[in-house]
Amino acid sequence: MAKEITNREENYSQWYNDIVKKAELAENSAVRGCMVIKPYGYAIWEKMRDQLDIMFKETGHVNAYFPLLVPRSLFEAEEKNAEGFAKECAVVTHYRLENDPDNEGKLRVDPNAKLEEELIIRPTSEAIIWNTYKGWIHSYRDLPLLINQWANVMRWEMRTRPFLRTAEFLWQEGHTAHATKDEAIAEARQMHDVYAQFAEEHMAMPVIKGYKSENERFAGAVDTFTIEALMQDGKALQAGTSHFLGQNFAKAFDVKYLTSENKEEYVWATSWGVSTRLIGALIMTHSDDQGLVLPPKLAPIQVVIVPIPKPTEEIMEVANKLIKELKAKGISVKVDTDDRKRPGFKFAEYEMKGVPVRLGIGARDLAKGVVEVARRDEKTKELIALEGLVEHVEQLLSEIQDNLFNRAIKFREERYSEATTYEELKEILNIKGGFVKAYWDGTSETELKIKEETKATIRCIPLEGGQGEGTCIYSGKPATQIALFAKAY
Amino acid sequence: MAKEITNREENYSQWYNDIVKKAELAENSAVRGCMVIKPYGYAIWEKMRDQLDIMFKETGHVNAYFPLLVPRSLFEAEEKNAEGFAKECAVVTHYRLENDPDNEGKLRVDPNAKLEEELIIRPTSEAIIWNTYKGWIHSYRDLPLLINQWANVMRWEMRTRPFLRTAEFLWQEGHTAHATKDEAIAEARQMHDVYAQFAEEHMAMPVIKGYKSENERFAGAVDTFTIEALMQDGKALQAGTSHFLGQNFAKAFDVKYLTSENKEEYVWATSWGVSTRLIGALIMTHSDDQGLVLPPKLAPIQVVIVPIPKPTEEIMEVANKLIKELKAKGISVKVDTDDRKRPGFKFAEYEMKGVPVRLGIGARDLAKGVVEVARRDEKTKELIALEGLVEHVEQLLSEIQDNLFNRAIKFREERYSEATTYEELKEILNIKGGFVKAYWDGTSETELKIKEETKATIRCIPLEGGQGEGTCIYSGKPATQIALFAKAY
Repeated sequence: MAKEITNREENYSQWYNDIVKKAELAENSAVRGCMVIKPYGYAIWEKMRDQLDIMFKETGHVNAYFPLLVPRSLFEAEEKNAEGFAKECAVVTHYRLENDPDNEGKLRVDPNAKLEEELIIRPTSEAIIWNTYKGWIHSYRDLPLLINQWANVMRWEMRTRPFLRTAEFLWQEGHTAHATKDEAIAEARQMHDVYAQFAEEHMAMPVIKGYKSENERFAGAVDTFTIEALMQDGKALQAGTSHFLGQNFAKAFDVKYLTSENKEEYVWATSWGVSTRLIGALIMTHSDDQGLVLPPKLAPIQVVIVPIPKPTEEIMEVANKLIKELKAKGISVKVDTDDRKRPGFKFAEYEMKGVPVRLGIGARDLAKGVVEVARRDEKTKELIALEGLVEHVEQLLSEIQDNLFNRAIKFREERYSEATTYEELKEILNIKGGFVKAYWDGTSETELKIKEETKATIRCIPLEGGQGEGTCIYSGKPATQIALFAKAY
Repeated sequence: MAKEITNREENYSQWYNDIVKKAELAENSAVRGCMVIKPYGYAIWEKMRDQLDIMFKETGHVNAYFPLLVPRSLFEAEEKNAEGFAKECAVVTHYRLENDPDNEGKLRVDPNAKLEEELIIRPTSEAIIWNTYKGWIHSYRDLPLLINQWANVMRWEMRTRPFLRTAEFLWQEGHTAHATKDEAIAEARQMHDVYAQFAEEHMAMPVIKGYKSENERFAGAVDTFTIEALMQDGKALQAGTSHFLGQNFAKAFDVKYLTSENKEEYVWATSWGVSTRLIGALIMTHSDDQGLVLPPKLAPIQVVIVPIPKPTEEIMEVANKLIKELKAKGISVKVDTDDRKRPGFKFAEYEMKGVPVRLGIGARDLAKGVVEVARRDEKTKELIALEGLVEHVEQLLSEIQDNLFNRAIKFREERYSEATTYEELKEILNIKGGFVKAYWDGTSETELKIKEETKATIRCIPLEGGQGEGTCIYSGKPATQIALFAKAY
């Protein structure tokens, strides 16, 4: 555990992999592109999920569960959506194994158990859900339908990285149905706001809110709203998307409702999702060369107590009292009583795991009525009086949460530029990285050319400051949109 | 919603299906044998999951997540386990779709995207998990490993019924690794106890604890502990199982550890699971001919307030105050302000959904300072003074929880018999149903003959009262085991 990890400067990508491994977040499995999420990584996901679930329920949503498998004929009904995901589909073709007659003790697929119609493992659930909604929606009284699902999905990606891009991942997908276009747009934007709020207030990760260009939109969407975060290597990461789907799925699955005036209309739809990818974003927003750094609100262990050098009776008495008081304040705390490991080893271990606050309790300090309080974010420590320590820790956790956010905001502001010429865009992207604002003529042609030449994509048209009158930096044509370019994950 | 459902007497199986439908718990999907769990059904599952998760964590377990797909070669490594599930496996053979050249706008499986090795959708995760544990376990210091997973699994069953038997279902599966046999057995029995406690205290469903005969054991287990409940049609339902796996999986996946004496040993294992099947058990334990009956501890809505006949300002003032006070006591409450529906319609609706307590608030009653309180379990109602109402409701919920359990215990006791002859066993099974205790010679031959002739299986050898000296009721041979027979789901 206490082994060093690669420096960010030296090899950023290796640094990321080292943290995933050494902080025991995840590991590759025997299945190509699929990871095992280890208990500590999963505990972070549980914190994220629980908080998001509260926010979804506060905004009127309920959870449900739809099948993992989608019949091919349903999957292909919404053509753009199907086209967008067809190349990444895991396909079930058989439903039975049998003993392999040529291979004692081995199994093979039973050729007599071929499905009449292939089943796709859901890469996303619009198809199966809208086929179900058809039976649920008849009149305006059945609307809106505000449903979310926590599930696993599968996209057969060629290049995978733990959390950031995996063949199977965990996510939530909201699927809502509305009577009017305005209401559906308002819903898509509301969930966009919920994601931004979650990212900033809980992950301490600043995000830019905007909408996607046509090229980058979700397959089957009319509009995709996105939150974009900046990683420490100057690359952007799409952290969550919320889609206004228009009537595309309602038309593909023939979902109509009777209005209060007794007219038949197609239903309006949204969908929105965030995934275990957020754990990758969390790692790359805050962590450092000593390991993971976690914002207190998402840390499975917020405070760790290390007895110095060993858990004596005197130390444990103080520790147990602290634990009780901290827990009473809703603070999660662990005491490490393993006496096979030295304190220095433990310090490094909890640093690696990103525990926000460490309390070192030793007999000499106790004699003076103080305890060593170390904060993970700034790697500073100070002696604090035992009297009032719990309040100090509570305050410190809140300070760390704010500090991480402010640090990340500052980092992003330093890498948020404006380019007035194409040369300038290229130079910024190459040297400084980060987000670059520039006038764009709104055409896919320009967008793709820039992508080809610079590897940067349009992350979004920001909701704030995305409009204006100017000249496209690439084509020189008149432009009314200001796009945000960046290299991205 | 207010439509009637089939009587239990008339057609028990149709009654069950009617409740699943009318209480809006689940419905069949476009995929054979896979159900959609609707929001109300899912809310019950969330209550179950949250409580079980607390109990697992209290007993030292942590959650993690392992891949959905299992390579065929791993799946077949533990032969008994593989053999047990081979006939029910959904198999992924391809990873891409392509446009169908003969069918504009349609997709087909891309024949060039065939997997080298087929992937099985997990019917259970021992294989993928023990293959992972191999990398995690090296020394006695790495043990015990106490991990649980919440996941979906798939078993291609031929005859399916919502919740009771579905091709895809949601469950939790605990997988633990231990240094000694005794410790593993103690773990399997601990989780057996946890399941029994959950069933009785939260589901208000009495269960019999026992272990399975060899025939009925989990494929790959040395011993399977089970909790068996009795449904209202006199059939038993296996509600949860906990398996002592011996060293079978450790040997199949070569998972060894170094003892503190530096010797190499195979690891000992357990696994244990409960699933959305519990919702089926819950329905069939308590519900009646008016619909679902839910124990308060698992009811998504514990109290519903119905304004009579309409939500006037006066009524809503009282209702809102009650809501606030009930919520402060942790009681979930809903007020139905929909004025398109009459109170009688609403009464029937919440009866159908099994809401434990209904408060009818009307102007005339309010003038007298009282509110109508109806309990779902006994379908009784009384006028209760507004003063002290919240405490009354709190008390009533606890009373309902107890009453449901006591009712179910009484029902089961009336259907718990002893047979001293085979004729007697057959007669009881045919006429009264329920559990029948009888001496059994311990052979599979006898067990299978009885099953063939009576359709009853050995549900378990009860932990209490399963031993004794007697004569097998079938073979007449000496018997030391007393088995519990029943027809079962």
